[in-house]
Amino acid sequence: MSPSRTPDPETLAEAVLAGDRRALARAITLIESTRPDHRHAALAMMEALRGHGGDGLRIGLSGTPGVGKSTFIEAFGLHLVEQGLKVAVLAVDPSSVRTGGSILGDKTRMERLSRAPQAFVRPSPSRGQLGGVARRTREAAALLEAAGFDAIVIETVGVGQSETMVAEMTDLFVLLMAPAGGDELQGVKRGIMEAADLILVNKADGDLAAAAARTRADYAAALRLMRPRPGDPEGFPAVMCVSALTGKGIAEAWQAMQRLAAARRGSGAFAARRAEQARRWFEEELHRGLLERLMRDPRLAEAVATIEAELRAGRIAPSVAAERVIDSLLGGPRQGTGGS
Amino acid sequence: MSPSRTPDPETLAEAVLAGDRRALARAITLIESTRPDHRHAALAMMEALRGHGGDGLRIGLSGTPGVGKSTFIEAFGLHLVEQGLKVAVLAVDPSSVRTGGSILGDKTRMERLSRAPQAFVRPSPSRGQLGGVARRTREAAALLEAAGFDAIVIETVGVGQSETMVAEMTDLFVLLMAPAGGDELQGVKRGIMEAADLILVNKADGDLAAAAARTRADYAAALRLMRPRPGDPEGFPAVMCVSALTGKGIAEAWQAMQRLAAARRGSGAFAARRAEQARRWFEEELHRGLLERLMRDPRLAEAVATIEAELRAGRIAPSVAAERVIDSLLGGPRQGTGGS
Repeated sequence: MSPSRTPDPETLAEAVLAGDRRALARAITLIESTRPDHRHAALAMMEALRGHGGDGLRIGLSGTPGVGKSTFIEAFGLHLVEQGLKVAVLAVDPSSVRTGGSILGDKTRMERLSRAPQAFVRPSPSRGQLGGVARRTREAAALLEAAGFDAIVIETVGVGQSETMVAEMTDLFVLLMAPAGGDELQGVKRGIMEAADLILVNKADGDLAAAAARTRADYAAALRLMRPRPGDPEGFPAVMCVSALTGKGIAEAWQAMQRLAAARRGSGAFAARRAEQARRWFEEELHRGLLERLMRDPRLAEAVATIEAELRAGRIAPSVAAERVIDSLLGGPRQGTGGS
Repeated sequence: MSPSRTPDPETLAEAVLAGDRRALARAITLIESTRPDHRHAALAMMEALRGHGGDGLRIGLSGTPGVGKSTFIEAFGLHLVEQGLKVAVLAVDPSSVRTGGSILGDKTRMERLSRAPQAFVRPSPSRGQLGGVARRTREAAALLEAAGFDAIVIETVGVGQSETMVAEMTDLFVLLMAPAGGDELQGVKRGIMEAADLILVNKADGDLAAAAARTRADYAAALRLMRPRPGDPEGFPAVMCVSALTGKGIAEAWQAMQRLAAARRGSGAFAARRAEQARRWFEEELHRGLLERLMRDPRLAEAVATIEAELRAGRIAPSVAAERVIDSLLGGPRQGTGGS
């Protein structure tokens, strides 16, 4: 998948803007590469895309394996395509980070959606740290928005920190749940409700329809214990039943998302969230970039290595250890007035 | 409060270890100071305290204003003092960060506990950013532990990011709630349940006893929707009724905390959490320290200023903006193979 030659950034950007799907795939591969020359080209390409597109809605979607995430996204995506909208799907898959493989089963999933000319389904990057994956996914989302996609779904499984990351790079966050029978309500990952704007109870069809309705009521009750986000319309965070199989509730879910997005656009909360995300992203990139260059200094690794065992055993305060490492790298601290 | 002369770190450390409360107060003031010479002395003092104390339990406590946090901590602290334990109270008060004042009303609160010879109540630092306050509070907690305190309560109000910060510097996290009448269940800040190991419904006395019991049941039901922390004993996170006024449930709450702490110590989760906190703290201090020295470079501020408006308006990708700032500070990126 990795491009053998570094593509010309301007040419690639033009092809992306022209709607060339191969170019889009190639551009994202370029973004995902960690090779310095690729990185350089990727940033030049992002720069060339500046000012294009920009009315896309970034939708975060999470749900544990088995809730029917792929099936839902396919049904949801096809519904949007039917409305004449362009839909892209990205994945942040923590399992691929750890194992090198992916439980999302990239190639064979969402076959119908993948074939739709207005849709673009991107397999999740199968290497790199979660932080790096998040970083590249943010750039890919920006790229897709520049390319004119109306909805960019960023999906993740309900494991680890990936939900928080996805919530922090999207405009609204959807949690997909399965119906639970009677007493045995399924466990919600601690903290996940914090991020959810919309909880969708999937599989609300056939034998499971009644269980789905009960589950919906249970989560609605649990959500009432939480404080709503200031400025959000009445009823959010919302809980709804859907069936990816029959299509039931899909249109309503999209309507709810649009209603929330419209309210947030109207109140300025949407732009404020984007600006806040951009500010945080910039700071992260700035700090990371600066640190990356400092971390290349072999004296740093040496200094950390000499102190690591003591730190792990709790025999030295972390701030003291850090100060010592910094001093050995950059020289002693500047003294202020009245030095000791 | 700020010391006019920089105290001698070794002398101060010895006085702290000898149990001198004035020295303890002075040591924490030194830790809180941002003056470079004070900072230098504070780190030398921390270094001198290395290897002392260390079996203390760090308890995070949060609750919105009006739930009776101070009254509860006083009753709870006095209960521990009666058991022959040494108790310290620290505060992370986001309101003092923003306004320079403090809603916790430092001086007059916990009068009885403050007077107990085995207790140490520290007013919250009234200046500085929340990140800085957290940083200093972590150091103060380590200092108190070195000084032989058995329990260190770090309290915060249920606002902003302060709970997460407190949860990340403590061994267990307690949420104090007020009873709610019937339907009008009070809003729990989104995400707060994520951190809670123990929810205490306060004011379970007199007219409010029945409401407190109902509230307890409601939160217990809500907690059942969440996945327990792996390895925690059955029944955690737990919800209990207490009355800071009558003392009801205070002993049981302390027992529950001890039970959880003992289980986590036994399973290794306690040490693992501490080690993870130390690792994160070290990395934060290292990165912050390195960045602080880089941030002093006036060329950085200049470069950020030239790009800030574009960034805010979303006209430049944050990663592109960051790369440009870094290049202007440290020179262009090193090229890898096959550069463009």
